[in-house]
Amino acid sequence: MNIAEEIALIGKRARVASYQLRKISKDVKNKALLNVAEKILAHTEWIIRENRKDLENAKTQGQTSAFIDRLELNPKRIKEMAESVRVVASLPDPIGKIEDQYIHPNGLKIARIRQPIGVVGIIYESRPNVTIDAASLCLKSSNACILRGGSEAIHSNIALAKIFSDAVTEVGVPENSLQIISTTDRSAVGEMLKLDQYIDVIIPRGGKGLISRIYEESHIPVVAHLDGVCHTYLHADAELDMSLKIVMNAKLQRPGVCNAMETLLVHEASAPILLPPIAKALIEGGCELRGCPRTQMLIECKPATEEDWFTEYLDKILSIKIVGSLDEAIQHINYYGSHHSDAIVTNDYSAAERFLDEVDSATVYVNASTRFTDGYEFGMGAEIGISTNKLHWRGPMALEGLTTFKFIIRGNGQIRQ
Amino acid sequence: MNIAEEIALIGKRARVASYQLRKISKDVKNKALLNVAEKILAHTEWIIRENRKDLENAKTQGQTSAFIDRLELNPKRIKEMAESVRVVASLPDPIGKIEDQYIHPNGLKIARIRQPIGVVGIIYESRPNVTIDAASLCLKSSNACILRGGSEAIHSNIALAKIFSDAVTEVGVPENSLQIISTTDRSAVGEMLKLDQYIDVIIPRGGKGLISRIYEESHIPVVAHLDGVCHTYLHADAELDMSLKIVMNAKLQRPGVCNAMETLLVHEASAPILLPPIAKALIEGGCELRGCPRTQMLIECKPATEEDWFTEYLDKILSIKIVGSLDEAIQHINYYGSHHSDAIVTNDYSAAERFLDEVDSATVYVNASTRFTDGYEFGMGAEIGISTNKLHWRGPMALEGLTTFKFIIRGNGQIRQ
Repeated sequence: MNIAEEIALIGKRARVASYQLRKISKDVKNKALLNVAEKILAHTEWIIRENRKDLENAKTQGQTSAFIDRLELNPKRIKEMAESVRVVASLPDPIGKIEDQYIHPNGLKIARIRQPIGVVGIIYESRPNVTIDAASLCLKSSNACILRGGSEAIHSNIALAKIFSDAVTEVGVPENSLQIISTTDRSAVGEMLKLDQYIDVIIPRGGKGLISRIYEESHIPVVAHLDGVCHTYLHADAELDMSLKIVMNAKLQRPGVCNAMETLLVHEASAPILLPPIAKALIEGGCELRGCPRTQMLIECKPATEEDWFTEYLDKILSIKIVGSLDEAIQHINYYGSHHSDAIVTNDYSAAERFLDEVDSATVYVNASTRFTDGYEFGMGAEIGISTNKLHWRGPMALEGLTTFKFIIRGNGQIRQ
Repeated sequence: MNIAEEIALIGKRARVASYQLRKISKDVKNKALLNVAEKILAHTEWIIRENRKDLENAKTQGQTSAFIDRLELNPKRIKEMAESVRVVASLPDPIGKIEDQYIHPNGLKIARIRQPIGVVGIIYESRPNVTIDAASLCLKSSNACILRGGSEAIHSNIALAKIFSDAVTEVGVPENSLQIISTTDRSAVGEMLKLDQYIDVIIPRGGKGLISRIYEESHIPVVAHLDGVCHTYLHADAELDMSLKIVMNAKLQRPGVCNAMETLLVHEASAPILLPPIAKALIEGGCELRGCPRTQMLIECKPATEEDWFTEYLDKILSIKIVGSLDEAIQHINYYGSHHSDAIVTNDYSAAERFLDEVDSATVYVNASTRFTDGYEFGMGAEIGISTNKLHWRGPMALEGLTTFKFIIRGNGQIRQ
């Protein structure tokens, strides 16, 4: 079998499994997830042994320590992984939820109810815990899933997928509900993206290059987040204490992630008071600052170019702009931003409400750090990704985002006039 | 200006209008829609005069009478068009609806609320009432829209769009909330499909050729229905009276539409009783029958080929298959069908429930004709289309399907630990 045939077979098996999955009960799904948690803990040593192979390859290839850190599984992380599966098991089942129900004047009983999507394909890089998160969320939402992890984590991913599969089939979940693509051949992704007859949605998690390529190539609908150019706007009345705390957290608590702030907007009335101490703290935190001309007159920084306002640095770099009004701030965010996560700091009621109403982003904050945009933080148990699409799902996505619905209509002989 | 520049300008204006539209109140939207209804009635004569130009072109081109019938606007149809705008005005406003709201243990107040998608592009053929339906639904859901109707209805569409635009701007709706592409140059559609920065979703309505082309070419997400291979399954216990009534309605009441039945499945236990009288009635109704080998032994019909089971005839042709079990019927529908609308006729409770659960279609019926799959029939006031996509929306789509949501988070200084 060549790669195209192999991937097509995986797709076909997933489709079959997806129809079988519709018939298993909530109890079986939850029992299966609890068994996964148990088996993950029981196999801690084996997981660490397999993970070590990936870590050694990464070191041989001279990967950065940040990369190696993301890749590493230790007893603490394995315990957390098992715990997150237990959380998913404890969440309400999303399937069968009635969204709407009414009786038509002609007597037809019309209901719209939540259903699994069918087959979910997940393409991801480095962090092996995605294997378990994605598989758990797909099982809980009665979807079959096909996982394609990065080659850098192949041993860890195969081990985790095997533990998951064995644990769930043991209690009656259909075989092939979870399948992992074990070849590291790069053409496998391209083959996967052709299988629109077997895969209903592709969810990519990873760098911009991976995601752009998938959008370009896929014959299957894609739900993905492409960019996280997130803003914090300090309004005219913003207080220094809260502004400083939120800015430092949004920019520096973890600069390499999509919900970290990339651009700081400051109202001209508060800029002279707020910017100097905030700039000082950011620079002490190792952050490079790039400012608009007015910013450059208040603090020491490099000039920001037009390009900067569009840029997701994913690093200790921040662009800063002084704006004349709330309107200018909102327009800047809607024009330059990526509609991911944006925050205002203010105690002005109508400014806060206008910001919430008019900023066209997946998540909009008042007086909090954009770093909260995350399925776990939002109480979803885990997340399958964060969508910057406007269709299907927007923002952190977990169980409900992994469902579709259908209309069911019960009649007693009605025909159309 | 060349066509590419012209279409891009329309896109840019729509994006600007979409941000202005977010700020207008429900009252203004409803007042605008009621004004549209009034103005449509007041301009009946002018609409008919413009429509006559299209009708004359169609006759010159030798179009079929069915085509000319779809194109024609008369006082009755114009009155219905105005009435449907009034219905849309009377529906609940979809924007701002809270889908979910909770307080995180850290005090963040997290809510998920319905929002307009932004800019909706609609590409459609022949029937000019789509101009008014689409524009009304988009305005009610606070979306800017760009309409591209077929060249065969260009005079009617431009007249209707002008009446709509004038009527809504008169009461304060932003200009360019509705724009119509007035060139009939075929390259305009291609240019529209490139504008992913200005258009958020493309909704095509028309033949399979149009829709396949749009899926192929579009850089913008598409919500569309591609095929309507709909089934009716007569279970082992199905009664002749109800079966006959539902089959005749689903196949012959209007054979050229997507929710008409294309394949009839009959359980082997009831086939000898049901098939002969049903076949007789269908043949008397002018329907050609194509049957599986077992069907051919019971009634006079042509042999059905493998291709027939996949075919949407949109005509007075029906393929018929005898199945050995409910399972075989469900498998046939899931494999050969287009996941649009499928019905079972039975009085067997568990067969009905299994059919509703296991048939993977947008709309699934017990004891009713598939012809009901329609936004108006489902109580949505009108429809923007019927989606066979599984993502974003499934089945008849109207106001709620024209929204997305965003998360709004109110804090008092929370930062991520």
